[in-house]
Amino acid sequence: MIETSLIGFSRGEQTNSSFYAVNPVSGSDLEVQYGSSSGKEVERACELAHLATQPLASLSGAAKANFLRSVADRLDASIEELIETMTMETGLPEGRVRGETGRTSGQLRMFAKLLDEGSWVDARIDRAIPDRVPVPKPDLRTMLRPVGPVAVFCASNFPLAFSVAGGDTASAWAAGCPVIVKAHHAHPGTALIVGKLVVESVREHKLPEGTFSLIFGSGQTIGQSIVKNTHLKAVGFTGSRQGGRALYDLASSRSEPIPVFAEMSSINPIFLLPEFEEARMEEIAEGLFSSATMGVGQFCTNPGVVFYPDNEVGASFRSLFVKKMNTFGLAPMLHKRIYESYISGINQISQQNGVEELFRSDSYSDEDSSYAGPCVLNTDMNCFLKNPLLSEEIFGPFTLLVSYADSDELFKVILGLDGQLTGSLFGPESSLTKHNKILDLLETKVGRVLFNQFPTGVEVCPSIVHGGPYPATTDSRSTSVGTAAILRFARPICYQGFPDTMLPPELREANPLGINRTES
Amino acid sequence: MIETSLIGFSRGEQTNSSFYAVNPVSGSDLEVQYGSSSGKEVERACELAHLATQPLASLSGAAKANFLRSVADRLDASIEELIETMTMETGLPEGRVRGETGRTSGQLRMFAKLLDEGSWVDARIDRAIPDRVPVPKPDLRTMLRPVGPVAVFCASNFPLAFSVAGGDTASAWAAGCPVIVKAHHAHPGTALIVGKLVVESVREHKLPEGTFSLIFGSGQTIGQSIVKNTHLKAVGFTGSRQGGRALYDLASSRSEPIPVFAEMSSINPIFLLPEFEEARMEEIAEGLFSSATMGVGQFCTNPGVVFYPDNEVGASFRSLFVKKMNTFGLAPMLHKRIYESYISGINQISQQNGVEELFRSDSYSDEDSSYAGPCVLNTDMNCFLKNPLLSEEIFGPFTLLVSYADSDELFKVILGLDGQLTGSLFGPESSLTKHNKILDLLETKVGRVLFNQFPTGVEVCPSIVHGGPYPATTDSRSTSVGTAAILRFARPICYQGFPDTMLPPELREANPLGINRTES
Repeated sequence: MIETSLIGFSRGEQTNSSFYAVNPVSGSDLEVQYGSSSGKEVERACELAHLATQPLASLSGAAKANFLRSVADRLDASIEELIETMTMETGLPEGRVRGETGRTSGQLRMFAKLLDEGSWVDARIDRAIPDRVPVPKPDLRTMLRPVGPVAVFCASNFPLAFSVAGGDTASAWAAGCPVIVKAHHAHPGTALIVGKLVVESVREHKLPEGTFSLIFGSGQTIGQSIVKNTHLKAVGFTGSRQGGRALYDLASSRSEPIPVFAEMSSINPIFLLPEFEEARMEEIAEGLFSSATMGVGQFCTNPGVVFYPDNEVGASFRSLFVKKMNTFGLAPMLHKRIYESYISGINQISQQNGVEELFRSDSYSDEDSSYAGPCVLNTDMNCFLKNPLLSEEIFGPFTLLVSYADSDELFKVILGLDGQLTGSLFGPESSLTKHNKILDLLETKVGRVLFNQFPTGVEVCPSIVHGGPYPATTDSRSTSVGTAAILRFARPICYQGFPDTMLPPELREANPLGINRTES
Repeated sequence: MIETSLIGFSRGEQTNSSFYAVNPVSGSDLEVQYGSSSGKEVERACELAHLATQPLASLSGAAKANFLRSVADRLDASIEELIETMTMETGLPEGRVRGETGRTSGQLRMFAKLLDEGSWVDARIDRAIPDRVPVPKPDLRTMLRPVGPVAVFCASNFPLAFSVAGGDTASAWAAGCPVIVKAHHAHPGTALIVGKLVVESVREHKLPEGTFSLIFGSGQTIGQSIVKNTHLKAVGFTGSRQGGRALYDLASSRSEPIPVFAEMSSINPIFLLPEFEEARMEEIAEGLFSSATMGVGQFCTNPGVVFYPDNEVGASFRSLFVKKMNTFGLAPMLHKRIYESYISGINQISQQNGVEELFRSDSYSDEDSSYAGPCVLNTDMNCFLKNPLLSEEIFGPFTLLVSYADSDELFKVILGLDGQLTGSLFGPESSLTKHNKILDLLETKVGRVLFNQFPTGVEVCPSIVHGGPYPATTDSRSTSVGTAAILRFARPICYQGFPDTMLPPELREANPLGINRTES
């Protein structure tokens, strides 16, 4: 049997091209075959999304919230089925599947709550002043409205939370946009379980057919044909820098360019400040170990580079951290391609001038499997500053330690850093005050700056920023996690001179929804 | 004497390349010669802007507001000097210079007021829950912070309000960004007056030298070298579709792409609904005439195409409008290039199949001058839908009237429209209710939708949207007029786990600035 795409309420036809998911633990193909969509099917999905644009845009916040909650409920109810398929497709443990299901349904409910409250639309009201001289002031009322159909690309490392009904999709639906999801080749079965339950919710809530489609196929061909389709108005992507940049370039070169919110790569630097205390060494080495190996290092916020002072405390910290990494066994990576990138990445960096191997597990080279072991390399600031390769992201349980002489060196390295999702400073409070210029500079390079905390374990809430300057993302003004993610898929529309009854409820004089508004 | 660029507090050196402004009324070169900047000078300006990034980012809202007010005061005090130079360079009447000066200083003060109030930073606070299970919730606090140096390109049609200290610059400064302005070749003297007074304000307020530079030179070479400079983080532009797209393509192809907020072209369609009333014909024809000829049709929101019902009322309206346009004499255009585009544009459209010339002033072809007269062409929906040329913007006192048979035709034409700054519906309220699907559709194509009002005379206020889907702008989520323009030049930064004293005042527990915040 071949499983095919979900084109609105229909299934895709079988095509010549198909693929299997691979069990990364055993290295063997899984049972189910998936048929790639044809270009015609993609066109149909985009046409359906286009037709759904106005009906979805006219839904109330409450109607959208109910739909999101219905998807969340169905997700939670499918947990056993998800565990069975997702563990096979990804090698992730049951606990992770449970956790990520909860996070995904939680995200959907978070947006439902945001819609219930309703103030996210940034309603602005300027009332008419008919007798103003020299010219009357017109009545102007503005609110955020959906941008139109959005393409979402599933992430390899979050088969649920950044995939079919993940953060990008949830925020696009919340804004009132139809969504076309491109499944990831590594977990098509997980995608299909979620896709089918989404279709049930779309039907149950009598939403237009084009509210959702799920497409199987290659990123290069099918993914690109989605982004090129004139009906599409925005793109959400989480993945590699190469993949995100390719989509960005494609979307920018359209005759009507569209925004791409690609969350791509970050080394999430950790800075142990010069006054870093010996007393907290154990606690922080343990925290770093846990953060660096969490999810086998396959998180966007994985701390890849640690800068430590070239003194006794720094040297002790280095030894302690290496000892801890030594306790981490082998663990399966998400799929063969990530594994291969990891191995070639650490091989390449190990061979660079001035880079010393402090620890490397030598047992990942089994032919049939995608098991990876940790690796810790060490260098000094001089080599780091001279060699751009050393500041490239390596996805996996890898840490590069970099010693620095003084705070001037620290300042210099931050000045040269690419954009990052996060940057973390460690030390006593007095150290932060003393090096406030380092904090001010670091802030210009990241989306989230942390003090004495580790970047993994991204909190899903209104205040989170999961974004940052390029190449962390393609739009530093965005976040792909938290309620502000909805702002990526909305644009302001101003209504001038309209009778009250023809305005959206958010802008009516009586404020029937009771939302916060800017009025003047 | 050659006038040169303002590179921070220094003047540019004289180069081999220079130019003169032209008096569009006499057609002759003005006295002062302007020297184009060298690439080296551009680099210096960008380096200064880079150095100013952190000092400006650390300014309080009050400090930024004081600077903006100081520029506004100096602008108002320079009005006689501006009148003398700007009328010569643009052919615009004294009243317009006075009005635009007031608008420009008003915009600066509007942003100062926004900064005084302070809530624009969208502060979000999630407090720590240390005893949450299974994991503690960290303390997360987020606010909007400046993106870094911004390049602003002066607009030909707004020598003050969309130029040196215009809306783009004011909103970038308000966000805390250094600005590099590229002067427009048509009004370098006006630019220099404003540029010099800005430098005085920068010095008076002891802001960093790189807060502002003003560059003379060609858009193709010097303009592009500004946008390509790695220190630049965003671009503001108002002008032609070709110019805006070129900058967008350049910025998108950088190794670190940056956003371009280009406001480019719009035909601002007017729709007389099927139930359009004979009783209001005179009033609306007069309003349309005034809107279509205001500023010799050289406004971004100039109504270029009017759809009217193919019935008796429609025919009467057409005659009445033509009669009114007939009363408009000749008027000088802003510069020769705009004039030439206008003439070739209406020549081209006149020759299209099914296009009828209802009225055209035949006296604009004087060799030495840039005087233009109005032109009204007519066609039907069939021809309009078949010929994409008919929906291209022509800058000038030109109106294309298009008759339609019924509301289905109206729906069809809106469906096929490109993105627009505005779209205006005219008719009785009952008509709006009846054709609410037309309103819903129109909204997906524009940034501002109007009812029984004309799009020119853009109100500067919190609720205005001067933006819209491509090709009206390169980013439909933006506006270049109104307080929301500041959002183009800011990005959220999240502070996790910071001691209260090290947070920006906007995020401190005691909320010392008393701003509105989202707290949870």
